[in-house]
Amino acid sequence: MKKAIPILFWVSISLFIPTVLVYAQSIDSVRHQHYLDISRKMVQTALEDRKGYALLKELCEIGPRLSGSENSLRAMEWAKSTMEQLELEDIVLRPVMVPHWVRGDVEKAAIIGMDTPLAVAALGGSVNTPPDGISAKVLEIKSFDELEDKSDQAVGKIIFFNRPMDATKINTFAAYGGAVDQRVHGASYAAKYGGIGALVRSVTTRYDDVPHVGSMHYADSIEQVPAAAIGLVSADILSNALKENPDLEVKLELSCLTLPDAKSYNVMGEIKGTEKPKEIILISGHFDSWDKGDGAHDDGACCIQSLEVLDLFKRLNIKPKRTIRCVFFINEENGTRGARKYAQAADSSKTEIHVAAIEADRGAFTPRGFAVEGDSSMITYLNQWMPYLRQAKIDWIRKGGSGVDISKLNNCQLKIGYVPDNQRYFDYHHSDNDVFSAVHPREFELGSASMAILVYLLSEEFDFSKPNNTINEYTH
Amino acid sequence: MKKAIPILFWVSISLFIPTVLVYAQSIDSVRHQHYLDISRKMVQTALEDRKGYALLKELCEIGPRLSGSENSLRAMEWAKSTMEQLELEDIVLRPVMVPHWVRGDVEKAAIIGMDTPLAVAALGGSVNTPPDGISAKVLEIKSFDELEDKSDQAVGKIIFFNRPMDATKINTFAAYGGAVDQRVHGASYAAKYGGIGALVRSVTTRYDDVPHVGSMHYADSIEQVPAAAIGLVSADILSNALKENPDLEVKLELSCLTLPDAKSYNVMGEIKGTEKPKEIILISGHFDSWDKGDGAHDDGACCIQSLEVLDLFKRLNIKPKRTIRCVFFINEENGTRGARKYAQAADSSKTEIHVAAIEADRGAFTPRGFAVEGDSSMITYLNQWMPYLRQAKIDWIRKGGSGVDISKLNNCQLKIGYVPDNQRYFDYHHSDNDVFSAVHPREFELGSASMAILVYLLSEEFDFSKPNNTINEYTH
Repeated sequence: MKKAIPILFWVSISLFIPTVLVYAQSIDSVRHQHYLDISRKMVQTALEDRKGYALLKELCEIGPRLSGSENSLRAMEWAKSTMEQLELEDIVLRPVMVPHWVRGDVEKAAIIGMDTPLAVAALGGSVNTPPDGISAKVLEIKSFDELEDKSDQAVGKIIFFNRPMDATKINTFAAYGGAVDQRVHGASYAAKYGGIGALVRSVTTRYDDVPHVGSMHYADSIEQVPAAAIGLVSADILSNALKENPDLEVKLELSCLTLPDAKSYNVMGEIKGTEKPKEIILISGHFDSWDKGDGAHDDGACCIQSLEVLDLFKRLNIKPKRTIRCVFFINEENGTRGARKYAQAADSSKTEIHVAAIEADRGAFTPRGFAVEGDSSMITYLNQWMPYLRQAKIDWIRKGGSGVDISKLNNCQLKIGYVPDNQRYFDYHHSDNDVFSAVHPREFELGSASMAILVYLLSEEFDFSKPNNTINEYTH
Repeated sequence: MKKAIPILFWVSISLFIPTVLVYAQSIDSVRHQHYLDISRKMVQTALEDRKGYALLKELCEIGPRLSGSENSLRAMEWAKSTMEQLELEDIVLRPVMVPHWVRGDVEKAAIIGMDTPLAVAALGGSVNTPPDGISAKVLEIKSFDELEDKSDQAVGKIIFFNRPMDATKINTFAAYGGAVDQRVHGASYAAKYGGIGALVRSVTTRYDDVPHVGSMHYADSIEQVPAAAIGLVSADILSNALKENPDLEVKLELSCLTLPDAKSYNVMGEIKGTEKPKEIILISGHFDSWDKGDGAHDDGACCIQSLEVLDLFKRLNIKPKRTIRCVFFINEENGTRGARKYAQAADSSKTEIHVAAIEADRGAFTPRGFAVEGDSSMITYLNQWMPYLRQAKIDWIRKGGSGVDISKLNNCQLKIGYVPDNQRYFDYHHSDNDVFSAVHPREFELGSASMAILVYLLSEEFDFSKPNNTINEYTH
């Protein structure tokens, strides 16, 4: 039984042929060569100067940038002053109130009677323990279902959520998505069944003993119990010790606390468009990080890449037709207050329109592609730019989610997420591993260049004038 | 003036449409699903077990494997015993004589009168200096042309070849190719103009002070003078010192020497094909390394990936139709004696035919594509397999060079090179940086899986029966 698979045929008809037609209609040979030249220059300039990479080093030397922290404000002053040095226009720190959680000086855990401490770190938003900690027996579980099944054993215990990331998933973000529920909701599930605290296996692809933190949320009307991430080595030590002695007790001490909301800022600067200054192309990362490591890959690097996109225009003396705006959103990690505040203003603006927004928040590894929120005709349209984007190691443009911050924009036609290689991202994510030296200069700079090429094409080539018709025009 | 660019249209006609037709003709829906399932299982198994990665650790713990060294023989014993444990068939150490150069205990350099030593390492094949070294003034040049221009200044000096890799090239192999002439031919160019030694800026993308070694060749009938690589920091120190004082002298001491050729081996093992056992699909890396670091990325990792391809067949209980042979070639770095000896036997064999050969020698980073030595119809044919290869992060199959070792095979229809991301490769290449910890487990395992999928498809799906017609059949 031989039956042809129609899918590739469909792809050819729907993807490649229209591409050809659009391409033949829209990019003449002079422009084609010009775009190729510009793309190559962007790549060469980024790789040679490593200017963005040097700026990232400066940023990382300031330290991590948790929302509400003094350090985050210091970093914003640095960002503002850097944008001034780069001679951006309309540089603004736009105020927004953000959550203000602080880790405190004490965070430790140990199996009572054993010398070796367990490597733990409070999850962001966790309540503190009493000053002398909580001591309790431990219930190890792998899922909320298992916890429900064992709810009679949970009362008065520390619940130890020990389900690892699924290593078999090729997309590490998918593997992260499959494990992070324990971190986000573990504390409330623990409390729901009478547990007095939560320890959560770090959501990471790297086997070491560094706790990987991140946000957690308390459900309404459920008691708030303290929650901490535990390093993988410590998690395995604890799990093995529990097999030996299910009645062992763990002592957990956390002095973290939540302060009143603090004043913070989105930081932005731009290059005004020469022909369509009211049409904004947004390029962005989030400026806040967790308070471990330096927030290098997450998301300092992508902020600086966004900034370098504008600086590449400057260095190559390109005056874009549309306004290119770089925004460092505050508070992506635990509230998205910055993005929501920004979107509110942008969506209701009478003086400007966001025609496209790009978000970079997947680390600064070698470029692979762009994920576009749009239908197949839009993807088809953008794929005609592959000859240019390929100069910076972009291999594909596909349908996909753009990013958490720009998702808050309602009035924006085109949202795009930058997608670098992701195999190493969660080795560093939200931990002391996420420092400047984890970012490779060439991988970083190719990211700047690939986004600069995309932004350039969006500014010079894309027809946003017919938001609906544009797309239909290319689908036939 | 709007003029359509025909190239993309041509691509569509020549590449995508025939793909569809071939695909529709040749892969039915049951097989399509089966291939998808197998591909996913290969990826999942590799990522979950990390078995190849554990084997690489064992290999790296033995240390580097320079041709002719005792260590290389120890590693071969390990390889043979490992192949036996994996229950491969026809495990053989096939003898071949190889060059035997040894580094010796002494290699140092310093600017006379300065305390700080310069970081140097003899280039492979270099002659030694006299026991108390050579001391001479230094002529710094950037190219052989510049040396010729300054030939009157070269006599009696150490020639310092200080042209860096071109950082603006996106393909690091191209940047390497543009700088490595200094390392390969520098000593003979130095001697040609009366120089008494050569110092060569390390060919690397990483700024540190680790010398990166590699092969060099003496031209016939030109005096053989000692040659060493110098770390980038030391190269810059020397260059700056020369600006201050062009008459400074450098002392260079090397105790390396060339011994008589030594007996060594290609190591191989296989899984016999169930239907076409005489049709060989070769999967290979080179087993020798330079004597710095552990030869992890170059090319221990790719040897072990090749081995894991066969082991993935074993673990998934797949009995291939054709014979899958894993070969660890000896002496790729400084002679390709292993490959030439193997090719001699393979090309003249009356009992077996090499239908396809894959070489992996570009490091063990995240997969990007496969480079195929073949015409566009062959590339078109292979591109129908993208749905399966994409499961392991392969984004493209393109025309390109396969590899140094399999290039020696004359009687082989299809030669393919594995192409992972290359941005970090030359950070490690031929230096103390090339150790096990520089290899990422997930990036490594995706390489094993991507090659296993390709080998599986070559074994089960490809029609090698009509070496010429096969291709024509698909071009119309």
